[in-house]
Amino acid sequence: MDANEFRKLGHELIDWVADYRERIDDYPVMSQVQPGEVAEKLPAEPPLHGGGLGDIVDDLDRIVMPGITHWNHPGFLHYFPSNSDLSSVLADLVSAGLGVQGMSWQTSPAATEVEDVVMEWLRDMVGLPDAFTGVIEDTASTSTFTALLCARERTSGFSQNRGGLQAEDAPLVVYASDQAHSSIPKAALLAGFGAEHLRLIGTDDEHALRLDLLERAVDDDLAAGRRPCAVVAGVGTTATTALDPVAGIADLCERRDIWLHVDAALAGTAMICPEYRWMWDGVDRADSVVFNPHKWMGTGFDLSAYYVRDPEHLVRVMSTDPSYLRTAQDGQVRNLRDWGIPLGRRFRALKLWFLLRAEGVEGLQARIRRDVGNASWLAEQVVEAPDWGLMAPAPLQTVSLRHVPPAMAGDEEALAAHNAAVVARVTAGGKYYFGTSLLKGRLIIRVSVGAQPTEREHVAGAWAALREAATAV
Amino acid sequence: MDANEFRKLGHELIDWVADYRERIDDYPVMSQVQPGEVAEKLPAEPPLHGGGLGDIVDDLDRIVMPGITHWNHPGFLHYFPSNSDLSSVLADLVSAGLGVQGMSWQTSPAATEVEDVVMEWLRDMVGLPDAFTGVIEDTASTSTFTALLCARERTSGFSQNRGGLQAEDAPLVVYASDQAHSSIPKAALLAGFGAEHLRLIGTDDEHALRLDLLERAVDDDLAAGRRPCAVVAGVGTTATTALDPVAGIADLCERRDIWLHVDAALAGTAMICPEYRWMWDGVDRADSVVFNPHKWMGTGFDLSAYYVRDPEHLVRVMSTDPSYLRTAQDGQVRNLRDWGIPLGRRFRALKLWFLLRAEGVEGLQARIRRDVGNASWLAEQVVEAPDWGLMAPAPLQTVSLRHVPPAMAGDEEALAAHNAAVVARVTAGGKYYFGTSLLKGRLIIRVSVGAQPTEREHVAGAWAALREAATAV
Repeated sequence: MDANEFRKLGHELIDWVADYRERIDDYPVMSQVQPGEVAEKLPAEPPLHGGGLGDIVDDLDRIVMPGITHWNHPGFLHYFPSNSDLSSVLADLVSAGLGVQGMSWQTSPAATEVEDVVMEWLRDMVGLPDAFTGVIEDTASTSTFTALLCARERTSGFSQNRGGLQAEDAPLVVYASDQAHSSIPKAALLAGFGAEHLRLIGTDDEHALRLDLLERAVDDDLAAGRRPCAVVAGVGTTATTALDPVAGIADLCERRDIWLHVDAALAGTAMICPEYRWMWDGVDRADSVVFNPHKWMGTGFDLSAYYVRDPEHLVRVMSTDPSYLRTAQDGQVRNLRDWGIPLGRRFRALKLWFLLRAEGVEGLQARIRRDVGNASWLAEQVVEAPDWGLMAPAPLQTVSLRHVPPAMAGDEEALAAHNAAVVARVTAGGKYYFGTSLLKGRLIIRVSVGAQPTEREHVAGAWAALREAATAV
Repeated sequence: MDANEFRKLGHELIDWVADYRERIDDYPVMSQVQPGEVAEKLPAEPPLHGGGLGDIVDDLDRIVMPGITHWNHPGFLHYFPSNSDLSSVLADLVSAGLGVQGMSWQTSPAATEVEDVVMEWLRDMVGLPDAFTGVIEDTASTSTFTALLCARERTSGFSQNRGGLQAEDAPLVVYASDQAHSSIPKAALLAGFGAEHLRLIGTDDEHALRLDLLERAVDDDLAAGRRPCAVVAGVGTTATTALDPVAGIADLCERRDIWLHVDAALAGTAMICPEYRWMWDGVDRADSVVFNPHKWMGTGFDLSAYYVRDPEHLVRVMSTDPSYLRTAQDGQVRNLRDWGIPLGRRFRALKLWFLLRAEGVEGLQARIRRDVGNASWLAEQVVEAPDWGLMAPAPLQTVSLRHVPPAMAGDEEALAAHNAAVVARVTAGGKYYFGTSLLKGRLIIRVSVGAQPTEREHVAGAWAALREAATAV
């Protein structure tokens, strides 16, 4: 969506929200719809073409509003209150408009430092002593879960670093490649498996998991009486977008009754284009799959899509059934409280709906193809340039490269310092922001194309800046 | 904030976001500030008085923007992209404006059914077979963690229902009251303790944890070689806002070296008023405390405040250090990626900042006192009304009551059916929404005051409707 259309619809929606809050007591506080009534007003297929947000206000009134239970209604006396002051609504508009992802201080210092300050304000406001340091989590469910994980590790002397919580005799084992994202070891430790029961399997020259090594590891564990439990297959790993052999892994998992989870956090979005689907061939046999429309697709952070083959199993693991949460429709509807770790949930699905109406499937496909094309172009330039090396295949939108001046060839320490200096010089210029990664002991430069406004000229500009910096440092 | 001010500032901020996106390439893509530079421009104390959002646009430009790394900039080539299409920004505005909390189908059917439909669209768009069912999570970290928990339970035959992952010889044990929120047993199971090692301690006539029973349980576990690990103390429990004796629990936890976590999800907001702080006396000795400004305070969902005494311990449990996440400032700054389960984070702190500028501490205090006053008034009416019973003290804003027609006295089954029918009749009227809960085998009506627009007249109206329904059903 361009800024002009955003302006027009934005003003309309600001007034719509203001009107809504002014006449909120005209609505029945609890939604009166029957199960299925909202869903049946939505089309069965996503829009192919974009430009369909013009009548969104009508559709909100017609489709969404009858299905809203009004938490900010004066007659809302259920559960505990969940107030959204209109000032907070403005803050969400700003937060979404900035599109910040504040995982590290550097990825937006203001996101960290405003949090530092307001969490101190809040601590003092409620009279907690300054021995406490605060952090914002999504829900009390997550905060309390975090507290119990911390307690577990304190009392057990960091058992996660050793055997997890597990008994010695027949422990459960998790497998992923040595290129797996950091969230996978973290999840294995938090879930109590223990580092001793996490196998990071070696990868081939293209940085994909080696099936022969995985099979051997599973066989060894079985022979030793351990229980192979889950394999996480990466489609588009973080360092180099490597592609683990999902179909071969699925064969093994079926044979050995192992849970197969496919992590396609970035790459999943590309699968909107059928020509890229070979990359996750076999995914249909996974037990669970995750990908993040909030990465490449355009639904702002956060919106992660998690798909499972057996919802009953997920609900059995995640559900709780206290009397104060029961509703008249239990059994007829799905209650999303039972589909994940937090209890409370925002209405994030709107982001996907709005994006699809605005851009259409074809609009999204065109942008994905543009980005993959720009990355391929850059990879070709790197291959053709003297003294530059392409460090991994670039099937998607991330190019792994480095500069290898002849005088430094073979000296990994000198190459690492040199390439880090090249990146520091380019990023200090303020026009481009990218980073480095360690790939099997070698420092690589990682150029990850895919921001919406990034065109060929920007990728070409970054490449020119890299070559300039390589001679200047 | 009232709707008029929202309109004025909302239009201003829509244009501000549109202008920002149009000239995003004028900014250096990576923030150029030094550590501490944003924080020092913020006041050391939160504003006492409200009405201070008028110059927010200036302050965003002056304080926040220099500290933003621009993820939607054409030169953003780091990590993986994280696009926020402007259509998605509008969806976040609508989602926040509606202030929906979609934990159950009934708490906003549209939130569930739009998610059902768009997640099917998305599944088909990427070519996953319809054997998969989707759900939106916050991040791939959470999704993958969820997958490993599900795998663990499948392979171990739902060990969480028995001993957890723990070895038999010296298992860790968690304690909470029999009134603890459902998220506490859930967290204990997900963290691998196992239901056998969760003790739900009996409560007194006011539904607060009985310290003598807790001490006995801890002693019994120690005598049997088990390891007491954590106590979760509830301040303002979900059914009746009961107050566990935090100070006494803290004594015990110190003596036995047990982690003390205080769950004040609702009640924490009340502590802005010093006169209510007796309710969590002893909280200063907790290891961790959680409360949710997104409940009663007015920062829209989600924003949960988690405070810890030992941040190094939290970071040790939660941190990961892959090469692609390292930044030049590591060690000098806090990287919030290491402070919780998800890796990515939105800029939620803005909600607290905006709310405090709009309402001021005094404005929030006035609203909290109004709500507690309205609940006290209702509790008095219930005590004075013939054939109605107040089922628990009402120290905060939730009143637990029931109708006891003389003919049904002592017949719990009849009373439960009668009171459920009373609630169903009132809520079907569309003016009031509240529910029932089971309190030690008795069905109670729970009237939880605290939505922003709820005034005495609404509480009085709900009470009149309850009495009318009690004679009509």
